[in-house]
Amino acid sequence: MEEDTRDNSSEASPLVQVRELAGVLSAFAEERDWKQYHSPKNLVMALSGEVGELSEIFQWMTEDASKGASRDPACAQAIQDELADVLIYLVRLSDVLDVDLNAAVLHKLKTNASKYPVSKARGTSKKYTDI
Amino acid sequence: MEEDTRDNSSEASPLVQVRELAGVLSAFAEERDWKQYHSPKNLVMALSGEVGELSEIFQWMTEDASKGASRDPACAQAIQDELADVLIYLVRLSDVLDVDLNAAVLHKLKTNASKYPVSKARGTSKKYTDI
Amino acid sequence: MEEDTRDNSSEASPLVQVRELAGVLSAFAEERDWKQYHSPKNLVMALSGEVGELSEIFQWMTEDASKGASRDPACAQAIQDELADVLIYLVRLSDVLDVDLNAAVLHKLKTNASKYPVSKARGTSKKYTDI
Amino acid sequence: MEEDTRDNSSEASPLVQVRELAGVLSAFAEERDWKQYHSPKNLVMALSGEVGELSEIFQWMTEDASKGASRDPACAQAIQDELADVLIYLVRLSDVLDVDLNAAVLHKLKTNASKYPVSKARGTSKKYTDI
Repeated sequence: MEEDTRDNSSEASPLVQVRELAGVLSAFAEERDWKQYHSPKNLVMALSGEVGELSEIFQWMTEDASKGASRDPACAQAIQDELADVLIYLVRLSDVLDVDLNAAVLHKLKTNASKYPVSKARGTSKKYTDI
Repeated sequence: MEEDTRDNSSEASPLVQVRELAGVLSAFAEERDWKQYHSPKNLVMALSGEVGELSEIFQWMTEDASKGASRDPACAQAIQDELADVLIYLVRLSDVLDVDLNAAVLHKLKTNASKYPVSKARGTSKKYTDI
Repeated sequence: MEEDTRDNSSEASPLVQVRELAGVLSAFAEERDWKQYHSPKNLVMALSGEVGELSEIFQWMTEDASKGASRDPACAQAIQDELADVLIYLVRLSDVLDVDLNAAVLHKLKTNASKYPVSKARGTSKKYTDI
Repeated sequence: MEEDTRDNSSEASPLVQVRELAGVLSAFAEERDWKQYHSPKNLVMALSGEVGELSEIFQWMTEDASKGASRDPACAQAIQDELADVLIYLVRLSDVLDVDLNAAVLHKLKTNASKYPVSKARGTSKKYTDI
């Protein structure tokens, strides 16, 4: 009889793995004596700053232009750098808050699946409170 | 003769792995016919919205209080949910932009290491342009 | 008999007046043929970008340091410039959306006063849903 | 001989007047003993939160739809409320930082006019560093 492994497959193969990066960032901060600045509050502000820079790249683009932005050599590197910065601060923030991002995402995906069942959410961008 | 494995070590053990999540999110959007809404421009706005919600959790906390926020049952779940939402939109955005987050982070870490050498950056929160 | 003028005093002396600035910004955009870029959606992104720059100025400061930030010659001008940028995009956005900011603020202040009565809100930073 | 009144015309008729609102907000905070929470750092985070809420309203709209958003009864009030919230925190922040928004805006408009001369900026959304 075949065992159904779906329920624990997420543990065997996590959706996201960021532990290595968390370690590298912690060491980077430690070496520079920066841990004194890395309170969750400060890191949330740093994250806001990086998302702001990402917004600036896309603010005047049409949606269509935004779809090809990665192929435009003039902004491809800037986009990659800003996405990396957002991830770096997000992982550092989760680390100082002792939050397991993989577990948090699994939990949120379940919530989203129940808030947005396919039958009601299909083809609409409305918020779950309005469908 | 010892082989230098530094160059390909990052491939063997990536700093971040988000491919599984990217796949789950793509399927989630596909099932709901949401891909029409997921332009990079729109996803950057969604990311801004989630980071705004994270800011709201921390806005009136002192830095010290923010350090213990994860242990406060009243806000622990909210924090995890918002961190998950930020990661979800970041991974979805990177996917539609065809950006490899692991490669982007590796590149950015090199840039940061050269902008902020330990000797100059130690113990200061100044920007690289000012040190 | 003395007339009670409280009800229409807000019309006689508005809380905020931004019409002059709205006119200047509209002309500035017109002269440069920029109105094609000034959709509400784009302007919201531009506003996010400016608030992100403001966050970057304050991200590593302690709350105490932030209180004296305007007196620090190194960042006073940067702060003024970012505050101005936020106001500029906010007024431009309100103008293209045909929103009367003075009326909107009056309405919001009434809502806030009823959500946060002094008796319940005194000395707490909790959200109205929690008091 | 005609007098040149350009220099002081801005004083006679300011581009923006927010002093009344600043006073109302200060009294509102004072009555609730909220001034302890209103450090510039905290208010910048509150501003980020409100701009995040504005982003959420517009995130899935096309640019064209965003142009008519104020006429949609379903979101007109939400838009007005969020614009008001952004202005409220911006004015409160400027007040605690002792920044004169009118002067800051006048200064920034001069900078913008010289960064973006009509001859170079016409019809392009490029940043001043690229034109």
